[in-house]
Amino acid sequence: MAEYLYRHDFKVRDYECDMQGIVNNAVYQHYLEHARHECLLHLGINFADLTRQNIHPVVTRVELDYKRPLTSGDAFWVGVNIEQTSRIRFAFLQDVVRTADNKLMLSGRTTGTAINEQGRPEMPQCIIDLLSKAT
Amino acid sequence: MAEYLYRHDFKVRDYECDMQGIVNNAVYQHYLEHARHECLLHLGINFADLTRQNIHPVVTRVELDYKRPLTSGDAFWVGVNIEQTSRIRFAFLQDVVRTADNKLMLSGRTTGTAINEQGRPEMPQCIIDLLSKAT
Amino acid sequence: MAEYLYRHDFKVRDYECDMQGIVNNAVYQHYLEHARHECLLHLGINFADLTRQNIHPVVTRVELDYKRPLTSGDAFWVGVNIEQTSRIRFAFLQDVVRTADNKLMLSGRTTGTAINEQGRPEMPQCIIDLLSKAT
Amino acid sequence: MAEYLYRHDFKVRDYECDMQGIVNNAVYQHYLEHARHECLLHLGINFADLTRQNIHPVVTRVELDYKRPLTSGDAFWVGVNIEQTSRIRFAFLQDVVRTADNKLMLSGRTTGTAINEQGRPEMPQCIIDLLSKAT
Repeated sequence: MAEYLYRHDFKVRDYECDMQGIVNNAVYQHYLEHARHECLLHLGINFADLTRQNIHPVVTRVELDYKRPLTSGDAFWVGVNIEQTSRIRFAFLQDVVRTADNKLMLSGRTTGTAINEQGRPEMPQCIIDLLSKAT
Repeated sequence: MAEYLYRHDFKVRDYECDMQGIVNNAVYQHYLEHARHECLLHLGINFADLTRQNIHPVVTRVELDYKRPLTSGDAFWVGVNIEQTSRIRFAFLQDVVRTADNKLMLSGRTTGTAINEQGRPEMPQCIIDLLSKAT
Repeated sequence: MAEYLYRHDFKVRDYECDMQGIVNNAVYQHYLEHARHECLLHLGINFADLTRQNIHPVVTRVELDYKRPLTSGDAFWVGVNIEQTSRIRFAFLQDVVRTADNKLMLSGRTTGTAINEQGRPEMPQCIIDLLSKAT
Repeated sequence: MAEYLYRHDFKVRDYECDMQGIVNNAVYQHYLEHARHECLLHLGINFADLTRQNIHPVVTRVELDYKRPLTSGDAFWVGVNIEQTSRIRFAFLQDVVRTADNKLMLSGRTTGTAINEQGRPEMPQCIIDLLSKAT
């Protein structure tokens, strides 16, 4: 099992399941987003504060590999890692793991940057600091 | 503070907040639903199993009083009580309470029944048992 | 069939249905909210603009009567009326009607006010104007 | 502008926007899913029926490139194409385009297969027929 910068525990809520009786595909992005924000918070970065400071982190690309479906009642956790991918971009690497058997349910890669007050992409200082700590 | 049959802890997730920066009104019904299902589970009733057994609990009426808005980062809990309201109906009385200061954010009343295999409303046995325990 | 100030057409999207194969209860509040905002827009009031002008319409109470469930593929419309309920409160009366047979699926009553810059409830001028037109 | 097998019109609903005032990243997957299901329906394939027939289309991989954010009030459409990517896999290629200026907001690629009654991946006959028509 890989090591993670941060892990966040979840449990499937029934309203997240669709007609197929499994968690709807889009919901995983909500799980990943929440785990990212909790990871940042854990590292001292408040996403809501960033927004209020006019620093807008933006997602530029999402890749999700669906391995197995989560279903009603499943406990799971999301592991989060972060890496720099270019001068102005960084990526969160995230795994969704079912708690009962440690099976990988989904792995995701979310690439982003931040838009500064001039509307230009800019690596936010808090992420630079984070990356230097993460290595 | 009222006594509850069951309490469930939550934390606001950023995707649940809307343009106003507060939890979207509809999301509270998700919180209440999840707290009800967890309450039932805690009392030995699995909502997903009920559906698979062709017993369909249905909500017939929802009343929500919005007192104060939850916002990004808020921890809160939902307290759940249950009462019989007619021969074939029962109601969940639920309060949403902000953890930091115990302020009441929303109170809700969700009335329901269950539809049996013949498509008729019927008080499910598991709820009858529950109500006898709850008193 | 009642007359409405405004009607908005919808079609159920599959992701709105839950494990029971029907539209999840909370989703109706999304339908009602969207129909209200479209109604206001139709009458010249932009909800997003209000938020940007620091006028915050807030919902204080929601009552929903669930009559029949919408399911995958259903076309439906939401009829909207509005009435003043006190010096500082107004209510939207809304019906969700299945297009195929004009059956009433849900009726809702959403009471609200607006919070001004001083943080106090105030009947917004645009709603006062609207109510005088609606009568 | 590319040609599409199918186009579906949408309008952003305010509850789909988050604290940043733009459509939440996960919501695009809902748009894409709904456009796929409407595309299939348009071509004579009912997703809900498939589920009831125990044919379970599953998404195995999603790639989303976020170009520009949709915001409150935006009208947009989703263009859908489909291609076979292996003996048992097919992909939907989808573009989200803002109606006002035909700007590309997001492009997505959703790869899937179907799980048959034996729990094995199998190219569903209806998709095979579709692909032969699409070429």
